[in-house]
Amino acid sequence: MNTHKSGRHFLQIPGPSNVPDRILHAIAHPTIDHRGPQFQKISEEVLLGVRRIFKTSGPVLVFPTSGTGAWEAALMNSLNPGDKILMFETGHFATLWHNMAKKFGLKIDFVRTNWRHGVDPQVVAEKLSEDLEHRIKSVNVVHNETSTGVASRIAEIRKAIDQTGHPALFMVDTISSLGSMDYRHGEWKVDVTVGCSQKGLMLPPGLGFNAISEKAIEASKVNSFRRHFWDWNEMLKSNENYLYPSTPCTNLLFGLKEAIAMLEEEGLDNVFARHARFAEATRRAVRAWGLEILCEEPLEYSSVLTAVMMPEANGADSLRKVILESFNMSLGNGLGKVADQVFRIGHLGDMNDLTLIGTLAGVEMGLERGGVEHNKGGVAEAMDYLASS
Amino acid sequence: MNTHKSGRHFLQIPGPSNVPDRILHAIAHPTIDHRGPQFQKISEEVLLGVRRIFKTSGPVLVFPTSGTGAWEAALMNSLNPGDKILMFETGHFATLWHNMAKKFGLKIDFVRTNWRHGVDPQVVAEKLSEDLEHRIKSVNVVHNETSTGVASRIAEIRKAIDQTGHPALFMVDTISSLGSMDYRHGEWKVDVTVGCSQKGLMLPPGLGFNAISEKAIEASKVNSFRRHFWDWNEMLKSNENYLYPSTPCTNLLFGLKEAIAMLEEEGLDNVFARHARFAEATRRAVRAWGLEILCEEPLEYSSVLTAVMMPEANGADSLRKVILESFNMSLGNGLGKVADQVFRIGHLGDMNDLTLIGTLAGVEMGLERGGVEHNKGGVAEAMDYLASS
Repeated sequence: MNTHKSGRHFLQIPGPSNVPDRILHAIAHPTIDHRGPQFQKISEEVLLGVRRIFKTSGPVLVFPTSGTGAWEAALMNSLNPGDKILMFETGHFATLWHNMAKKFGLKIDFVRTNWRHGVDPQVVAEKLSEDLEHRIKSVNVVHNETSTGVASRIAEIRKAIDQTGHPALFMVDTISSLGSMDYRHGEWKVDVTVGCSQKGLMLPPGLGFNAISEKAIEASKVNSFRRHFWDWNEMLKSNENYLYPSTPCTNLLFGLKEAIAMLEEEGLDNVFARHARFAEATRRAVRAWGLEILCEEPLEYSSVLTAVMMPEANGADSLRKVILESFNMSLGNGLGKVADQVFRIGHLGDMNDLTLIGTLAGVEMGLERGGVEHNKGGVAEAMDYLASS
Repeated sequence: MNTHKSGRHFLQIPGPSNVPDRILHAIAHPTIDHRGPQFQKISEEVLLGVRRIFKTSGPVLVFPTSGTGAWEAALMNSLNPGDKILMFETGHFATLWHNMAKKFGLKIDFVRTNWRHGVDPQVVAEKLSEDLEHRIKSVNVVHNETSTGVASRIAEIRKAIDQTGHPALFMVDTISSLGSMDYRHGEWKVDVTVGCSQKGLMLPPGLGFNAISEKAIEASKVNSFRRHFWDWNEMLKSNENYLYPSTPCTNLLFGLKEAIAMLEEEGLDNVFARHARFAEATRRAVRAWGLEILCEEPLEYSSVLTAVMMPEANGADSLRKVILESFNMSLGNGLGKVADQVFRIGHLGDMNDLTLIGTLAGVEMGLERGGVEHNKGGVAEAMDYLASS
């Protein structure tokens, strides 16, 4: 948009992710009547299709908003002012969701971590077992912490909840995991799943999702939070005819139709395997550089991004600046309490082996140019792995 | 998107309006890092540029949302639960804004009209004069009622408020007028102006605006509505560095940059004159058909759309269906209490004389094909006017 830099920009932040041309073309289709039959047909296809991505047979509501808005919709519909909820400080985004809940007057038991681990299912079980009066109304977990590259084990947390027989709602933020890592709203009996458009769905920002269970819908009907824009019941009513209570993001929905088609053409399992392979190649490169991965638990490695710790504890932002200026690549910055201490390599969405190698080369050459102590050979390690796997 | 229909669809609802190719191409630009320097530069240009469109030197906040969301942001930031406000039932959208305010516990003096007139400045003066204790905290007016084609006279309402010396905030919905009809946030001392992307700004839906005054910002600081996503102060803080508190709609902001450039290349006064001319041509056509215009007050004619009454009181929806199927043109439907009784011709945004004549021809041939009693010659009247003006 400014001075031309030859070659395509490498957008390797952990979302917004690179938008494939096929989707860019779809969103550039002329806008149509959002209440006309042609749009209703597209909308039907999209609203039913997106259920397959969340792996649910129930409704997935699409709001014209960001992920933050989708968080707000989740809380405002299913909880009551003053309710007690259980949250986990697994990283910056979990903390932001917590801060929002606090603003709305929810009482939060906020379990701390060192940002290098996910939610411990055992702790969930303990907290719920102790709550004999069932005062905890929901358990809120971020599936993939975009700030740390740590993924919590949702299936195991579900089991932990079930073992206690506790009736709390289960809410999961799948903002940065959906469409990149296996996620099963239905099978894992999640009550509210929060998602957005600009990560694994490979779309620009602008759509926020709430996949909701029958139990969550029941809770929303007796909920006393005043709400209008976020109101599920208004949305559910309009969605019966594949319409929306306020003007939907027509053009992003054209894009979503295409995104669903692309994910299903590749096959969701193949999509997840591709992401897992990119993540493994990236970790091998990081280890070859002699740098440390923020995530300490191999079972919790993220397929979406890898957060890498700086050897001297800080300097990540100046490294990112060198890489942006020298190699036209954007990496994710450290957020909150790891600001400047880590950089994040996004390896999600519309990527292949060669774009991953380009990405890792940008990091390796950036470490060199930025004077960060490291060993060479990360790219070579990644290539060996990709060539043989 | 389905079976091909040759020639471009005529999207003549009163918004979303036709998006020019130049903007469609801009939004199809690859997504970039929403926290990187390139986006900050675009964002600076956009956030300062959009002030010129609202005609204000103060902040214009851009939310990733619809117009409904922007309404909610306006109310949640500047009022307190239980506040008394003055609203006017000028049509369907004024009613929806009223319904929202009611849900949030505001006490509304809702002044009725027959949907064929705008807000009477005299009534505003009377209501405020009677309110000796200054219990009315805001006067909320829809500038251009998209459901009726009636435009309230904002400058005169401002004068009426000033005459009384009443300190109420002045909030105006300019959702369907901005960029099509003259609007002056600063000069008219509006405290909160609500706008969105998909009308005169010629963008797809997905951006909601709040242009705000110092007085409104002061009110927001002592306001007790719990809010997070809509919070102005969070947005103002981030906007200082041309950033956003949650992920912005990057690609629509690329489009907004282009839209501002296009409006300024044409010149805002020329844009307004072009719209006024289309509206006059349309009214001449309607009168030639022997049909009635919903708006009864010539001083309140909308430049954005013309709502036309059916001769037999109803049948508007079947007429619209005939027109869509026969001529690939979408017209606006009657909403709320004029459902099926009127159809609405949108003549806003990216239009010229020939697309307007095409539009009117679609209506005239549709009236014929749909068996609606009328006189021919509307298109001829409009052509005479356009050719000579």
